[in-house]
Parts: sequence; C-alpha cells; structure tokens
Amino acid sequence: MVESRRIRIKTNGNSEITDITGRVAREIDDSSIENGIATVFAVGSTAGIATIEYESGLMADFRSSWDRLVPANMDYQHNRAWGDGNGHSHVRASILGSSLTVPFTEKRMLLGTWQQIVCVDFDNRPRSREIVVQIIGE
Amino acid sequence: MVESRRIRIKTNGNSEITDITGRVAREIDDSSIENGIATVFAVGSTAGIATIEYESGLMADFRSSWDRLVPANMDYQHNRAWGDGNGHSHVRASILGSSLTVPFTEKRMLLGTWQQIVCVDFDNRPRSREIVVQIIGE
Amino acid sequence: MVESRRIRIKTNGNSEITDITGRVAREIDDSSIENGIATVFAVGSTAGIATIEYESGLMADFRSSWDRLVPANMDYQHNRAWGDGNGHSHVRASILGSSLTVPFTEKRMLLGTWQQIVCVDFDNRPRSREIVVQIIGE
Repeated sequence: MVESRRIRIKTNGNSEITDITGRVAREIDDSSIENGIATVFAVGSTAGIATIEYESGLMADFRSSWDRLVPANMDYQHNRAWGDGNGHSHVRASILGSSLTVPFTEKRMLLGTWQQIVCVDFDNRPRSREIVVQIIGE
Repeated sequence: MVESRRIRIKTNGNSEITDITGRVAREIDDSSIENGIATVFAVGSTAGIATIEYESGLMADFRSSWDRLVPANMDYQHNRAWGDGNGHSHVRASILGSSLTVPFTEKRMLLGTWQQIVCVDFDNRPRSREIVVQIIGE
Repeated sequence: MVESRRIRIKTNGNSEITDITGRVAREIDDSSIENGIATVFAVGSTAGIATIEYESGLMADFRSSWDRLVPANMDYQHNRAWGDGNGHSHVRASILGSSLTVPFTEKRMLLGTWQQIVCVDFDNRPRSREIVVQIIGE
C-alpha cells in the first residue's frame, strides 16, 4: 500500500529549522498503513530534511556550522548568473539532502527520544514549502 | 510490487555531475508501478547521489565547495596505503550519500521545477558507473 | 510485505566506525522478502549511517575530515546549555544523515565490492546503539 501526503510550512528562510515530527506522525496516523516507511521529501532545491535534537542551542550551532562550511558571502557563479544571491543555499541543501526515510511499526516512528525530523530552509528569503510524506507498507 | 532497474553512465570523474532525472523518469515510466518511491543508489564508494538545480554556474560552485571542504591535495592515509590518490573521493562520496529516495504519484516524480537528480562522480579518473533504480509501490 | 528488525552494537563513540554490512545482510537473509529495499536507520541524534570502503587508512581520513569540518573544541551553545560536550556530535550526525536505503534482489544487496554499510558513532563516550533495518518488498 502507498499513501502520498503533503505538509505545507511557511519559513523565514536563512537556515530556519522547522520541527515537522508531529506533522509526519499525524500523516502516518491518518493513513491506513500500520507498519512501513515514511519517505520525507523536500520539494525544491534550497531546503533539506534531516534528523536532529530540536533544542535551541543546537539550532544555533547547526546554523553557524553551515555559515562556516558553506558561507553565504563567497563568490558564487550561480549568483553572478541569476542575481538571486542564494548560491550557498543550493550547495547546503544538496549536501544535507532532500530525502529522509523513517521506519515505523504499529504507526509509531522508530525515532530516538531526542531525535526530531526537521526541514531546514536554506533559502535567503521567506518561503512556502511543500514537503511530501510518502508512506509505504501494510 | 518491486522493480529493479539499472542506469549506466560514463563520466570523466573529478566531481563530474551527471543529470540522471530523465533516465530515472523513464525507468518509472517503463515499470508497471503507478505510485510509490524510487530509490536511486550509486554502486561503488566514490560516487554520490543528490538533488540540485542543474545549472552550469551552480555546478562550478558545488565542485569548488567540495574542493574547499575535502581537498584533494591533503595527506590521506588511504592514498599512502593504496597509491590511487582518491582518498578525498571516498570521503566526499560518504558525506554526500549513496542513496536518494524520491516519491512519485501517477508515474510522475514529485520534484520541484528546478530540482534535478544527479550522480556526482568524485573519483579521480574516468569511470563507468552503475546506478540502481529500485521502484516500489502499486 | 514489511519486516522490522533491529541490530544492536556497542561502540566507543568518538567517531568510531562499525561495519554493519554483514549484520544487515543477515537480516535480509532471515526475512521472507526476496526483492526490495532495506532502510537502515540510526536511532538517536549523535550517530549516522553511510556507505564507505571499510579500510583502516580511510577510516582515519574520514575521522580527521570530520575533526576539521566540525571540530569538537569549538564553542557550541548546546554544550553551554547541557554541559555534555557533544555539540559537535549532533551537528556531524545531522549532516551525515540517519537513514540509508539499500536495494536488494534475490536477497543480495546491490553494493559495490568495496562499498560497506557503516554506523558512525559521533558521541563523545561509549554507547549502546540500536539500528533499525526496515525491509520492504516481495
């Protein structure tokens, strides 16, 4: 069985991190599937999906790590060509990854206690984001 | 239902990025599955799979980011032991990731308009690459 | 069909890399599924799953790359708030990723010859780790 569901969020961009664990859990709960996997997929090329302990100190650490690893203020050829200033957003999103697959049994995701599912919006402006939750199982 | 398909590409290595979106779409189209997920998996330890906006400026930015993050010209113990000079290729491929799972409905992948599926060949020489597209659904 | 299995490992933390390829292969073999995908998922927020050539030189290179990219001895707000000194562990695990999906046919994973599945424990102390292997197929 396959059920395809969507989550929509609004973000401020600039590496804003949104905890979507509860939203994904609800989609699994509302589906007719008891055991399986949920593939969480960020539609678009400047956002990524990850798991992380959703805690304010760590959110700051995660953002500053990306600022250091893939700085916004470097010379990106993407920015020269398109003028939208979000070359770093694309590179970060590709490295973090757009898909995450989470197992669940009896409708409960097998996450750790301090392990949340997040969408990281690396774009340099506010965005509406669509996230697909593709649920497969029995 | 499960269908296992292969894509074969030739690359020049050295972080060459190949857009395989159309190839993956064709495999889904040729399958008997309407709704589900496609797991795109790079066979081998020096290539990775990602989504990115396939645009020439960004391709240069992506490559130069990897050159900065995991430089080729550092001292790698892998190179000392094996003499093949591709220690950086292995590290980059592991960080980027070898598998990507993409949802689709009515045979259409739920990608953004500027979101392509790519294989990044980090090896330091031309390679023939096998990519598995494992399609699961109904 | 869905089968949910668990692997338990003991690690010393500090980016210890455990080859779990044989363990995942055994779970697929013991299952009743011939063709499909295995989602390998690290429970917890300080470990990641990847593929890599499991070779001692490269293990050292992989660890030193993370030490350089996301150093342990920086000022992490997570450490200030929680005092456990593992801010870097969380950031590394999120970037590497907690889930990997591997295709298999006739019970054989479609890995390259030098491509192993590993769990990287980034925490700063010994840990017992639970890894879910969610097997889906027919």
